[in-house]
Amino acid sequence: MFKAVLDDVTLVRDSLDAVSNFINEGTFKLSKNGLSLIAMDPANVAMVLYDLLASAFTEYECSSKTKLTVNVPYLVSILKRAGTGDSVEFKMTDSANELVITMTGDSKRTFTLPLLEAHGNPVKPPEKLKDGFKAEVEVESAAIKAGAKDALMVSDCVLLSTTKDSFVMKALSDTNEVNLQLSNESPSLIKLDSKSAVKSKYSLEYLEKMMKLSKVAKTVELRFADNYPLKLDYKALDQLKVSFILAPRIDTE
Amino acid sequence: MFKAVLDDVTLVRDSLDAVSNFINEGTFKLSKNGLSLIAMDPANVAMVLYDLLASAFTEYECSSKTKLTVNVPYLVSILKRAGTGDSVEFKMTDSANELVITMTGDSKRTFTLPLLEAHGNPVKPPEKLKDGFKAEVEVESAAIKAGAKDALMVSDCVLLSTTKDSFVMKALSDTNEVNLQLSNESPSLIKLDSKSAVKSKYSLEYLEKMMKLSKVAKTVELRFADNYPLKLDYKALDQLKVSFILAPRIDTE
Amino acid sequence: MFKAVLDDVTLVRDSLDAVSNFINEGTFKLSKNGLSLIAMDPANVAMVLYDLLASAFTEYECSSKTKLTVNVPYLVSILKRAGTGDSVEFKMTDSANELVITMTGDSKRTFTLPLLEAHGNPVKPPEKLKDGFKAEVEVESAAIKAGAKDALMVSDCVLLSTTKDSFVMKALSDTNEVNLQLSNESPSLIKLDSKSAVKSKYSLEYLEKMMKLSKVAKTVELRFADNYPLKLDYKALDQLKVSFILAPRIDTE
Repeated sequence: MFKAVLDDVTLVRDSLDAVSNFINEGTFKLSKNGLSLIAMDPANVAMVLYDLLASAFTEYECSSKTKLTVNVPYLVSILKRAGTGDSVEFKMTDSANELVITMTGDSKRTFTLPLLEAHGNPVKPPEKLKDGFKAEVEVESAAIKAGAKDALMVSDCVLLSTTKDSFVMKALSDTNEVNLQLSNESPSLIKLDSKSAVKSKYSLEYLEKMMKLSKVAKTVELRFADNYPLKLDYKALDQLKVSFILAPRIDTE
Repeated sequence: MFKAVLDDVTLVRDSLDAVSNFINEGTFKLSKNGLSLIAMDPANVAMVLYDLLASAFTEYECSSKTKLTVNVPYLVSILKRAGTGDSVEFKMTDSANELVITMTGDSKRTFTLPLLEAHGNPVKPPEKLKDGFKAEVEVESAAIKAGAKDALMVSDCVLLSTTKDSFVMKALSDTNEVNLQLSNESPSLIKLDSKSAVKSKYSLEYLEKMMKLSKVAKTVELRFADNYPLKLDYKALDQLKVSFILAPRIDTE
Repeated sequence: MFKAVLDDVTLVRDSLDAVSNFINEGTFKLSKNGLSLIAMDPANVAMVLYDLLASAFTEYECSSKTKLTVNVPYLVSILKRAGTGDSVEFKMTDSANELVITMTGDSKRTFTLPLLEAHGNPVKPPEKLKDGFKAEVEVESAAIKAGAKDALMVSDCVLLSTTKDSFVMKALSDTNEVNLQLSNESPSLIKLDSKSAVKSKYSLEYLEKMMKLSKVAKTVELRFADNYPLKLDYKALDQLKVSFILAPRIDTE
């Protein structure tokens, strides 16, 4: 038996909205601590790790560990139908094969979402990545989102680089160049930890989708290394953590 | 001679905007009490009854009963050109075959709309329907509009049903279900009069267009019966009444 | 060496945005008084004269007269990336063949715009036009913009006319007519100087694009004569002057 209530649907709706740009079907693990999801995008370029804590909910009850596979974009479209001030309840009985979402405000509206069968093997988080990161940067998520949008004006990929005291996002075309530069003086740069100069290139198409999380998280942590995956960590208080791992773009000649 | 002035064009503009989704040419009857229109949509599925009282206007003058056939979408596009605070005057002399609309604010703008010839026989209101209705419900128009939008997520038609103490809008697909449920405890339900259990199915495409009237009317009255037409009544103070009659969707096997 | 700083990018961004609807590449003349541009649209129907004074900038420095050819729509798309409160610096060294635009707020973002080679002969302002104008009108730019949008409902061209005491914009189709009429009583009419009755027809497609300048200039001056070019002058304080010259539409039978 699973039952959870939100008095404000915003955080869950907006974060799942960003996630739904990467996956279609998603298998959530439910426990008494909250719900989590690990998934790869169909092109195998990006991994999403989504953790929504029980504390994000007004009420939360999960009698036993269980799994729940749903169509995430459809779940998001349901959550978008909640009105301001509506209380939103998620409920699933052990026997039933559906998730029932009830929105209560001036009226009572019910949405029934069928549970799907999970496909393929569960995706595991890439534990060993941790040791490979050479640079760690924490920045205001709005600043880096602006930088990615700037970069899209000239290219479909961006070069991230760090030195001891600066973090740079750079995009190049044959004729034009776009740059975001953050130094220790920049109010947008919260933390910079880079022993050596590091640089690596990533897809802007993917980055831009990930940066939709800036709607719910004021800052973002980036970890990367030369020609190595990028890890982005977004956190919202003690309620939500969303991480993305993005493969590097390696130029082949 | 017909002359009418609006100091605020909103009510007339928004209500005719909704009506213009159903009809192209419309024949308005003008009398000293106001103007009215009865029309069928081209597919013969819905009837519109539009009554705008003289009291909706700042000034109103109609020397003799007359008829006025115009292209309603074009009339609406003219009204949308009025600025906030513009006074809008409608004028038609007995001899002229055009309606002159003048907007006066910081500048004076004039739109001349040719009168058209009325086609076909005038549509008569279906008086005998009245006795057939078995359920009567008054609800907040915003609530039922949300319910229709919810329902569109899974189907192109919706089942309306009542019991003694509840009103339900339900939509079904092969896998999903969406429900709006109002009971006597729901703040959105104003009146419910249903001697017996009643249910009937209607097109959501039509319903959604009708619900644009919720912009001008806070509540709506619904009357229906098993496999019987639905009548929707929207009222705005002592100024406007718009009714729609919608044929039921009867499943054939 | 050219360096100029804007603390508020709005005026420059919005005015160049309007100009970019007429030209692709633009050659700006830079002097210590400011920068100016004269260009024809590709169809040779309209001329743009753009003058941005040094006083529009927070800082302005231009060591020698020089020219600067850039892709104007791309320059505008860069300016649109500035955040509210960002300080925007334009910089060009004498040797470099690029314009560097730096936006400084919470972060520092740099855009490098390559200089292009100027094509064709420089366009000269049509000095002799001055004596031919027979009517001169100053109106609120919002009023005439609304009039042009009204007119677009029925036609792709508009007839401007004046008498001693009125200014009229009229558009006609086979059946409909739209009119903006300003007399000396209209608050929107600021000045009217027309010795005789004057009328001339102009393209609405061009006029509507020019009227985007109403975003930065409260009033506009119009000068025209029978079947003669129209000159529109928009001014924003002591910072900006944008003029358009538009060829008349002459009916040929």
